This record gives sequence, C-alpha cells and structure tokens, in this order.
Amino acid sequence: MVEISHVSPLAPASGFPALAEISGLQFAALAAGIKYKGRDDVMLAVAGDQSVVAGTFTKSATRSAPVLDCEIKLELAKTAGPVAIFVNSGNANAFTGGNGLRSVERITAEVARVTHVPQSRVFTASTGVIGEVLPDDRITERISDLAGMLAPDQAERAARATMTTDTYPKGAQATVDLSEGPAKIIGFAKGSGMIAPDMATMLVHLFSDVKIAQPRLQEMVGRLTDQTFNCITVDSDTSTSDTILVVATGEGPKVSNSDEAAFETALHQVMLDLAHQVVKDGEGATKFVEIRVEGAVDNASAKTVGLSIANSPLVKTAIAGEDPNWGRIVMAVGKAGEPADRDKLSIRFGEIEVAREGWVANDYREEDGAAYMKNADLLITVALGMGAGAASVWTCDLSHQYITINADYRS
Amino acid sequence: MVEISHVSPLAPASGFPALAEISGLQFAALAAGIKYKGRDDVMLAVAGDQSVVAGTFTKSATRSAPVLDCEIKLELAKTAGPVAIFVNSGNANAFTGGNGLRSVERITAEVARVTHVPQSRVFTASTGVIGEVLPDDRITERISDLAGMLAPDQAERAARATMTTDTYPKGAQATVDLSEGPAKIIGFAKGSGMIAPDMATMLVHLFSDVKIAQPRLQEMVGRLTDQTFNCITVDSDTSTSDTILVVATGEGPKVSNSDEAAFETALHQVMLDLAHQVVKDGEGATKFVEIRVEGAVDNASAKTVGLSIANSPLVKTAIAGEDPNWGRIVMAVGKAGEPADRDKLSIRFGEIEVAREGWVANDYREEDGAAYMKNADLLITVALGMGAGAASVWTCDLSHQYITINADYRS
Repeated sequence: MVEISHVSPLAPASGFPALAEISGLQFAALAAGIKYKGRDDVMLAVAGDQSVVAGTFTKSATRSAPVLDCEIKLELAKTAGPVAIFVNSGNANAFTGGNGLRSVERITAEVARVTHVPQSRVFTASTGVIGEVLPDDRITERISDLAGMLAPDQAERAARATMTTDTYPKGAQATVDLSEGPAKIIGFAKGSGMIAPDMATMLVHLFSDVKIAQPRLQEMVGRLTDQTFNCITVDSDTSTSDTILVVATGEGPKVSNSDEAAFETALHQVMLDLAHQVVKDGEGATKFVEIRVEGAVDNASAKTVGLSIANSPLVKTAIAGEDPNWGRIVMAVGKAGEPADRDKLSIRFGEIEVAREGWVANDYREEDGAAYMKNADLLITVALGMGAGAASVWTCDLSHQYITINADYRS
Repeated sequence: MVEISHVSPLAPASGFPALAEISGLQFAALAAGIKYKGRDDVMLAVAGDQSVVAGTFTKSATRSAPVLDCEIKLELAKTAGPVAIFVNSGNANAFTGGNGLRSVERITAEVARVTHVPQSRVFTASTGVIGEVLPDDRITERISDLAGMLAPDQAERAARATMTTDTYPKGAQATVDLSEGPAKIIGFAKGSGMIAPDMATMLVHLFSDVKIAQPRLQEMVGRLTDQTFNCITVDSDTSTSDTILVVATGEGPKVSNSDEAAFETALHQVMLDLAHQVVKDGEGATKFVEIRVEGAVDNASAKTVGLSIANSPLVKTAIAGEDPNWGRIVMAVGKAGEPADRDKLSIRFGEIEVAREGWVANDYREEDGAAYMKNADLLITVALGMGAGAASVWTCDLSHQYITINADYRS
C-alpha cells in the first residue's frame, strides 16, 4: 500500500475547526487495531433521550451490510429516543457474504447492552478494505472501554477515527437563531482519500441540539443531500458504503414552522462546506472546480449536464494541465443526453467569456483562459440558453497523482 | 502539442492488411495542408452507380456540421446511385457556428461538380481540432487533383489520411460466400489516439461489393453498431463527430434472403475487428480488456453493467496497475443502476473464479489473480445470477500515459 504523507494542497488553511459541544451528545474514540496500527479506528457517538435521526445512503446495488442495517432501522426510528452511532475504519464490511450482517448484529447488540440505547436505534458505518471479514471480536471487546470514555468535547477525535487515507479531517459548524434561541449544528466527514483496495467511501455525521420531528428532518436531509453531497464527484465512482447521518438531540431550541427556512439554510451551509472539503481531499486533487450550469430546461437537467462535465476524464485532465480546453466542455455537454443546442451554448471561465452562442467568443484570447486556469479554485459556467434550470456541481482535476494512488501499488 | 512517436503496444503485429479491391470503388488521398505538414490529410472515396449507403452517427447534442449534413442526406438516400465520401483530418469543423455547414456545402458542391455524384449523395467527415473554422478553400482547390488520382488500390493511403494522432492505421476485411458467389467486405477506422485539443473522434468506413437494398443494410448496420462500436469505451467521453458509413457498390453478388445471416456475420466480424483495434489504440492503453456480463435481467441491462465497469476510473487504474482488485468491480456493478444482488454475484478473471455468490471464492488465491493481470489481453466475467441477459464490452486501462497525453501539454 502506498502511504500518502502529504496533506492535500487544497486543505483549509485554518485546519479542523473547534467544534461546539451539543447538549445531550457525547463522543469517544480509541484504537481497536482493526487494520491500522497506532491510531484510533473506532468511534462512538451517543445522543440523549429526546433525539431524532435522519439519513441518506448510497444507492449502490451492492451496498454494505452496515448500510443495509441502517436503512431498515431508519425506516423504523420515526420518533424521539436515544441514538447511538458506531463507526470503524480499516474494514468496509462490504461484500463479505452473510458474515457482514452477523458482524453488524454483534456490534450493535454490544453497543446497545453497554449504552442502554435500544439496538434498533444503534446505527453503524464501516469504511476501509472490501471483501475481508470484519474482525468484530476486536471491536466488541472494546465497546465497554469506548462507552466509558464518552464526553461532550471529543468530536475531533471521533472525526479522526473515521478517516481512512484522507489527508486531513473535515469539520464544519454553524449557529442559527431560532425563535426559542440559538441552535448549533456541527458535522464531520471522511472521504475521497481512500486507497487500498477500494473506493472513496464518504461518511458524514451531523449533529444539532434542535428539537424537530423526525419526518421533517428526514425530508430536509434528503433535499439537502441532493444539493450538496450528491453534487460532488471525484471520479464518478460510487461507494458501497456512503452514509450520511444527522442527529438532533432535541435539548436545544425547537424548530418552529417559522424557523424552518433558517435552520435548513444553516444545515445546508454545513453540509456544503463538508461536501467541498471532501472534493478538496479528492485523490490527487490540485484544483477545486465549480461547474455552474444555467439555462437548462430544468434544474435536474442542469445537474445532469454539470455532472457530465465534472465526470469527463478529458475535461478533468485538461484542468490538471491548466489547459483552457473549452472544446472538451462542448463535448461533455453534448454527451450528457439532455436538451442542448450548439448555437445557444455559451461558456465562461470565471468572468472570461470563452464561447458564445455556438462559437468561440469574439474577444476571447487564449492567453486569458490559460492565465485563469492557473488558479487553484476555478469556476466554469455553462449557459445552455434553453430555459431557467440551474445547478452547481463541484469536482477536482484528474492528475498523475490519481493514477499513482490507484494504480501504482500492488494490493 | 505532444507528439506521440511510438506505436501502441497493443497494435496488431501483422500491421495493416492488404485490403481487397472492391468492384466499383476507388480511393484517393493527398496532402492539402489543413493542419499537418508533410502528410496526407484528405481522402475521397467514390462508389459507382449501383451503390447504397448506410450509416450511424454520434448522438451528441453538439455534433459537428459534417454529422448534421450526413444525417439529413442519409434520410434521403434510400435508393441506389453513386456515392462519394470525403474526409479531412486536422480540423473537426465542430463548434464553428454557421461557418460549419457553409464549409460542408462548399466542399460537397465541389466534390459533386468534379465527380458527377449528386451533391445529395456526397458525405463528409472531419476530425481534428474543435472550434477553429475549417480552411475549406485549401480543400476545394485540391478536389480536382484528388479526383484525378482515384484508383481501386488506394484504400490504405485513404485510411492513413483520416488519422489524427492514431498510433497506427486500422484495417480489416472478410470474404463471405453468398448464393451468387463470394462477396468482399473491407473497412478502415481511425480513433482513440487523438490529442490536441479535443477528443478521440472515431471515423469508420466500410465497403462491400454486394447488392443489397439500402433499408436492409441500414437496419443491419444499426444493429451491428450496437454490438460493436457502441460496446467499446476508452474514457466514457463521446465525440461530436463519430461517424460510421457503409457503402455497398452493388457490383458483386446479391444478398438474398438466405444469404443475409452469413453476410451479417461477416460484416459483424469486420466491424468488431475494427472496434477492437480502436480500443487497442486507446490513449495510453497497455491492456485490452473484455468485460463479459452474464446473468443480467436482459441484454440491455448486461451492457449497462458492462459499461459501468469498463468506464470506472477505479477499475481502469487497477488494471493499469495489474492489481486483481475485484472489490472495485463489485462497486462498479453496484453503481450501474441495474438489477443486481450482492449474494448472487460472481466474478472470474479469465478462468480463475475470484468471487462467488457475494464473497471471495473459497479457493481463490490473490497470487493467481495477480499473475493473470500481467497479461496484455484480459477477460473479466461478471455473472449476476439474475436472468439470461448477456453482453460483452471492450475497454483499455487508464494509465499515466493517458494523463500525459491529455493533461501534460498546453494547447
């Protein structure tokens, strides 16, 4: 396995934020020795009796045992009560046959026994190697220790325990003023820096102290996932294990009807921040790129066109090479399968108009485009001229380092 | 622009075949100086009065002017008559606004004037740089010269004139015994080795001496394209200019009803051979990979799953690294959006059973998989266990050389 020692050049300069404590919420992490040596690889979060939980998961047809277990439990957990989340790194517990669900069963039973959270409200996520049976005995024998370490100020340590080969931990937070007072939202994510021998599983954990009905939270999380984590792509590949869980402990202010928009805006901000951090830790990433599509027939069409551009290897290699290659963007629009008309298509790099209504813009100069492409943060706007649909997606470039990470080692 | 001087390691050892002459068919090529220096860059093929023509084209919404012109003409050319095909390399005449169709008009008018083929039966294709106006005056002033050079034995020279940065010319042929006697099929293709600053446009030209009704030929070509050229992928990107044209001169044996299956089989063989040669000239390719999907709910589902695997950057980089990383194949099956069940999924590398019914196969040894992956020709079989649908698709690996070709130059 290749060890990537450096931190992504796109990592936030400010480092991991000092996450606020959330009333009713505690974390713990320790080193259970599942695969990695000398670092934390399991984490536990426990939220109090007033909590609700919402979530979204990978749509993969070969999704992992923990995801299958979470999906069922989430269907049943529509009311308030205690919630536990257990995560291990180093082993994805995916494609492990019947062993997979048996491991989940043993782990969640032990977490339930120790924490007194009903097993039906104990959620798990696993990330790491695929196809190896999870050594769940190494986990279950440490769950008492883990529970004994629970404390409100351990969020960063918990976040770090979920990392695989991420080059940095990803955290974000917000406060929002509701009618009953200020509410907090914190979250952390891992993803996109994974190496051997699998894919960039994304795990996202978000917590708030608000009081909110589970169905409202679930609806909001589904909608926001579509605008954030489902709008990012590193390499178009979808993990078997992607998991987003949001817990509201219910010990802070209530989200009244009039507060809902403000709370959703704040949650959106935290989710988008984490989503961007995941892209910025994309394997081999040297550029962070927003693809903004305007003038599509509707928003869904705009997103499809955006992802066609963001996933195109030819576009992504051009960006890696700092090449203002707008012809490849035309190509990626064309292949998206959405309504488009060459003679209405315009493209901008930042503020620079590159192509206008089906041809290179009159006053576009190649050297201006080339200079713009040297930026680490890029905005590429594609105006289709077909309607009012718009969407943004975020991606990174496709560099030699991606190939090095994913090809140049023997598992 | 990077010049790639070496020939793909996957090129046929036997070189370009000595293509048979086809009664009623002549070729010519010369250097018109469109972009390249010191090499042929235009070619003309003219077929006699009994000819029919069929074709398929890119489905891109931003397809090039020559493609748009060909589509219209093909709709109208349902009967026998003379046919001309003109191709230039070095400039794609794509995304050139209204100039594009005006250039096609001027070129096809001049070809018609000189060859006496009706303009409505003069087809063109262009491949090369996107977004630059085609210098059609350099072409039209040489069409008389080109027509003066027409000869039955110039197929290879014509094939070479259509190349852009292909590392070798691609030809194939077959003979097939029909009731009235032996028929010939020849063809050549360019594609997948293109560099600056666009994508791997694929142009395919096939010729036969058979007598066949145009609608029957068109139907056959559509069906065979789906099984051949539409089953290959280098990087999932779709050109604005992909064109397949098939001309039957009608001067050889008739394809009677009882001959149709034999003729279709022979045409399929030539098309598949050319399709494989295009993949083998894929940018940076070091491995030629067949992905065979069995047990899907239907053939279309099998093809979708196959393309999901064949287009996955994580699968393709693993192949480049000779890594028997079956976990990534599980992932790519899962993300395809087609019916699949982890616990029915089996995977074979060549004859080696790697995974069986949702888990690593009992007697699979990693060193066997690793040894197999050292081959240049790979067969990966995925059995879904859902039904009787099957399909094969063909791809190459994703190597450092792909990034070098597509990123490490400034246009």
